[in-house]
Amino acid sequence: MEIFKSAKKLQSHCESLRLGGKRISFVPTMGYLHEGHLNLMREGKKFGDYLIISIFVNPAQFGPHEDLEKYPRDFVRDEKLASTAGVDAIFYPENEEMYPPNYQTYVTVEKVTQNLCGQSRPIHFRGVATICAKLFNIVKPHTAIFGKKDFQQLVTIQRMVNDLNMDLAVVGIDTTREDDGLAMSSRNAYLKKDERESALSLSRSLIKGKEMYDAGERNAGVIIKKLTEFIASHTSTKIDYVKICDTENLEDIDILSNKSVLALAVWVGSTRLIDNYVFGEPLNIK
Amino acid sequence: MEIFKSAKKLQSHCESLRLGGKRISFVPTMGYLHEGHLNLMREGKKFGDYLIISIFVNPAQFGPHEDLEKYPRDFVRDEKLASTAGVDAIFYPENEEMYPPNYQTYVTVEKVTQNLCGQSRPIHFRGVATICAKLFNIVKPHTAIFGKKDFQQLVTIQRMVNDLNMDLAVVGIDTTREDDGLAMSSRNAYLKKDERESALSLSRSLIKGKEMYDAGERNAGVIIKKLTEFIASHTSTKIDYVKICDTENLEDIDILSNKSVLALAVWVGSTRLIDNYVFGEPLNIK
Repeated sequence: MEIFKSAKKLQSHCESLRLGGKRISFVPTMGYLHEGHLNLMREGKKFGDYLIISIFVNPAQFGPHEDLEKYPRDFVRDEKLASTAGVDAIFYPENEEMYPPNYQTYVTVEKVTQNLCGQSRPIHFRGVATICAKLFNIVKPHTAIFGKKDFQQLVTIQRMVNDLNMDLAVVGIDTTREDDGLAMSSRNAYLKKDERESALSLSRSLIKGKEMYDAGERNAGVIIKKLTEFIASHTSTKIDYVKICDTENLEDIDILSNKSVLALAVWVGSTRLIDNYVFGEPLNIK
Repeated sequence: MEIFKSAKKLQSHCESLRLGGKRISFVPTMGYLHEGHLNLMREGKKFGDYLIISIFVNPAQFGPHEDLEKYPRDFVRDEKLASTAGVDAIFYPENEEMYPPNYQTYVTVEKVTQNLCGQSRPIHFRGVATICAKLFNIVKPHTAIFGKKDFQQLVTIQRMVNDLNMDLAVVGIDTTREDDGLAMSSRNAYLKKDERESALSLSRSLIKGKEMYDAGERNAGVIIKKLTEFIASHTSTKIDYVKICDTENLEDIDILSNKSVLALAVWVGSTRLIDNYVFGEPLNIK
């Protein structure tokens, strides 16, 4: 497994791989790898001959009062995990490599970033789109793999790739969960012992939402009201949003169809967690 | 010479060319080709094995009250000219091919687009950067050729390519001029007979600026005042700007160095013309 810190060197390596007929799969991450990331990598292996991951805590996607500084990092551990998952190369750049002095170019996806997390994190998706555009240009992947847990991120990247005519396929992979249903996230490391139980209010809300839908409920307001009360009944929770949106344009909807997504963002103590469920699909929570 | 109207088909063609070891040169244009464009193409031939031009009047770079509708177009003539210049393929897409319904992704280069044309054309460079990002992703060029007449455009594209880690070289080519010095531009077609003489106030200002610099003048304000008076002394002229800027960050400067550019934008009747001169360099006006 090779470690690249230079964008130019990795880009040149990837160009050679492509010219040699290799198919490149790519999993961008912010590190502190967990089973969810490793599942993305295992899927990535299926799509190509050469699997690259990036580990970069991207400052451009953090707001001024967010957790950029305290975001967990452990490269030594990440390197071992990546190696066991069959990763061929890690891109692990410094901040200055990605954002040199006088950096000034940003990619904005305008509509699908307005609702949901875009409301409480106004510059977040500009940062996500920009770093992905940069990484795609460096890594030149045939396929890029993203988790569906960050549903709005996946939709945003898909729109960017289509709109800017980027020559790669974007693949979304089902959310990996702890045994009790909590969606895996590097931020789960922030949760204090007593907050861990309250964190389950998210995945349990998805189950409740699915049950209501399966029982025939199609009124978004009714489901949202029920889940809002449910989440609020847990200690240390503060709802950022409980929304039901169209899966393509991410606008709020009133009446559910088979292209509706239930999306949640909830503060548990000082940790902000997200989760989502597309109505009509299977839900991998026991 | 091949004509492509589909982005996907051209992209697939270009990927095959690259895999076959070919080097692709690219000249993006808005058509209504003149000798300036043809010079870019001749230069492009030197940088690669396969020369592609695009002809697309990009709506995203025109403001609401600009000349999008009346911008001159003549594809039949352009096709003949391109063929004689050794072009291998023309990309000639419809608006809907480039900006399908629900299009929403834009590339913004923040600092170098603020001054000069960015002040009177606030969305112009966002449109330019976005269409170039799209075209580069479709055409996959090793080298993209731009004229230096649009100096701020060249600087903007170079910044975008660097910032977003795009794997191509951007080459700037000297402005091609009419015998009397007028910089070639598709917009020269708008000029009425009596405006044609006033249009020479731009190129003659460059000569005057060069003469002052060569005689030792280093005070930007002194040169700007002189040229402003000179241009204003011509009938039908209205100055948008007469500025002297740093060639890299395009910020106004007070004292000239060998990285200073004199940049002009002047309305002649209802036609807006631009021109520029980098102090210390040769000036190809007889």
